[in-house]
Amino acid sequence: MTYIVTPWKVSGDLDYDKIVKDFGLDIISENLLARIEKHAGELHPLLKRKVFFAHRDLDWILDEYEKDHRFFLYTGRGPSGQTHLGHMIPWFLTKWLQDKFGAELWFQMTDDEKFVFKDGLTLEQTKKLAYENALDVIALGFDEKKTKIFLDTEYAKTLYPQALKVAKRLTFSTAKATFGFSNESNVGEIFFTSVQSVPAFLPSVLKGKNIPCLIPHAVDQDPHFRVARDILPKLGYYKPASIQNKMLPGLKGGKMSASDEGSAVYTTDSPDTAKKRLMNSFTGGRDSIKEQREKGANYSICPIYYHYQQLFMPNDNALANLEQECKGGSILCGECKQRLAERVGKFLVEHQRKREKAKSQLEKFLVRD
Amino acid sequence: MTYIVTPWKVSGDLDYDKIVKDFGLDIISENLLARIEKHAGELHPLLKRKVFFAHRDLDWILDEYEKDHRFFLYTGRGPSGQTHLGHMIPWFLTKWLQDKFGAELWFQMTDDEKFVFKDGLTLEQTKKLAYENALDVIALGFDEKKTKIFLDTEYAKTLYPQALKVAKRLTFSTAKATFGFSNESNVGEIFFTSVQSVPAFLPSVLKGKNIPCLIPHAVDQDPHFRVARDILPKLGYYKPASIQNKMLPGLKGGKMSASDEGSAVYTTDSPDTAKKRLMNSFTGGRDSIKEQREKGANYSICPIYYHYQQLFMPNDNALANLEQECKGGSILCGECKQRLAERVGKFLVEHQRKREKAKSQLEKFLVRD
Repeated sequence: MTYIVTPWKVSGDLDYDKIVKDFGLDIISENLLARIEKHAGELHPLLKRKVFFAHRDLDWILDEYEKDHRFFLYTGRGPSGQTHLGHMIPWFLTKWLQDKFGAELWFQMTDDEKFVFKDGLTLEQTKKLAYENALDVIALGFDEKKTKIFLDTEYAKTLYPQALKVAKRLTFSTAKATFGFSNESNVGEIFFTSVQSVPAFLPSVLKGKNIPCLIPHAVDQDPHFRVARDILPKLGYYKPASIQNKMLPGLKGGKMSASDEGSAVYTTDSPDTAKKRLMNSFTGGRDSIKEQREKGANYSICPIYYHYQQLFMPNDNALANLEQECKGGSILCGECKQRLAERVGKFLVEHQRKREKAKSQLEKFLVRD
Repeated sequence: MTYIVTPWKVSGDLDYDKIVKDFGLDIISENLLARIEKHAGELHPLLKRKVFFAHRDLDWILDEYEKDHRFFLYTGRGPSGQTHLGHMIPWFLTKWLQDKFGAELWFQMTDDEKFVFKDGLTLEQTKKLAYENALDVIALGFDEKKTKIFLDTEYAKTLYPQALKVAKRLTFSTAKATFGFSNESNVGEIFFTSVQSVPAFLPSVLKGKNIPCLIPHAVDQDPHFRVARDILPKLGYYKPASIQNKMLPGLKGGKMSASDEGSAVYTTDSPDTAKKRLMNSFTGGRDSIKEQREKGANYSICPIYYHYQQLFMPNDNALANLEQECKGGSILCGECKQRLAERVGKFLVEHQRKREKAKSQLEKFLVRD
């Protein structure tokens, strides 16, 4: 079985070794991790555990940094629903990178994208969702002096002329091959990647000098940045560097989806709702208690496990214990879910407190024309 | 021999009867002209002489007007060079319609279009040309209280979200069939018609109620408005009405082109330069003086004649005399060109005076985000 990974569809067997090869990514080497650790004083669990597993030109970013040529960070969100836990994985690392490397962050809310790609959504809805999602970003504690959040439609006077420069260099043929468009794709979908390219060089435009760009993102977004890397040098800018994370698996198996409610825990869920979602999750467990006690379960296919591994169990010994308990059959899935639900519930209470506070901070982060 | 008429290419034998049929236009009937004359008190020569020869829903525009439901006007310019005389034909009628019907005018400068379609032009150049061309528009005497001129890149925060609504409804397949795009077309070209659709409904968006729109334009722009007429009703707006003029033939035969200098007289030409261009023009004359004296010339294929007919000889008797002189061989092409050059020279001196004055009026006409 093969896989499909585009910004709008992820399905099949996500064989990350194959993705690295097919996309032309580089694996993050131990040597690179050591260089990051040297500058940061520590390694974020998402790096240490290789949730961020691949990159493009991260070595160059560090070369430049070591020459005191600082990079900026660029990441974003397609606002098609409330934020779920999977969306936040790149944001957690981005926040850490901002803290450790003193980097400016440009955060793009692609309300235009979600409007043209989603039949049921109006532009008013995607815009409203962008504002909701921005609260989650701010709640993670980004530095208000170093972080700019913008909606594509509200920043269009700045973005659109730059997007045209990318668009002029991109044929339908290339867009089709990269994203899998057909003749029935709408012309907004076809144009969109031009807009997603812009933040990778906008700070260079605005400051009148080339600044290296590092994009932490879930691997499904890579096609956009392949386009950007191809075209930006033709416009006189650096190729953006990037660092890719594996997808947090959905609770139903498959991809987490902001529009398929049962597939994920959302940041706006009450602890009770989150618990219900987690308790209903697919797992790597056996058909009967007896069998599981005897043979153990398979955490490598279990979304509950990956919630611990990627987000809710930063302690390495604790995680190793859990793996042993799972494999050895000494913990059953119900209990494992219960324990996770407690951790998730605590996170949600705290996150929602910060999210509420973010409402009064919003204007400090937003940039508009 | 057949013809090609798209917004970016006009070639072949412009058989306007065939164009009317192929494009699905309606001929402007005597009855319609009478209705216009009733309201305006007179008929503009461009209407009387059927330079504006076809329309879509002009009858509906008059129906609404007669019910005191006023229309607005929309026309524009693709700034790929200085303005030539051919560009101004729709503007002259638009000015007359504004005066006679008290209509608001939205004038679009598509600096984005010319950038993505023309290899050699930068966005900075098309923007600069848009400002140059705007002076020609203002010089024609449009009412500053009722006229809004905008550049697509400077008004993108307003235009882009509306363009997305059109883009979402337009497939590549339809764009390809309408404009003749290929897989090698760039994604900016493919998206662009969405932006050209926006002024046809933007006043309705801004005022929160549907307002009829009438678009005077050269017939080569019709494909854009076929798209707009298909999609706008799906967004809840009226189909825009339109009125089409024949192309002023180029001095070399073929289309006048803002980027082929010898093909037209430009508003920025000195009278001497204009005279040189006109004297070098292709005509409907014979190979020898003797032959022309004997058989007369063919004004129906002569760009010099069409300059008189469309712009520089509003008096019907004078034009009829000229036609007789030409057909009868009593005037030779050299003299006919001389006489035209005098009229054009006088026009240019006066136009350039107004154009100079327009520099101080510009800001009153421009709208930006």
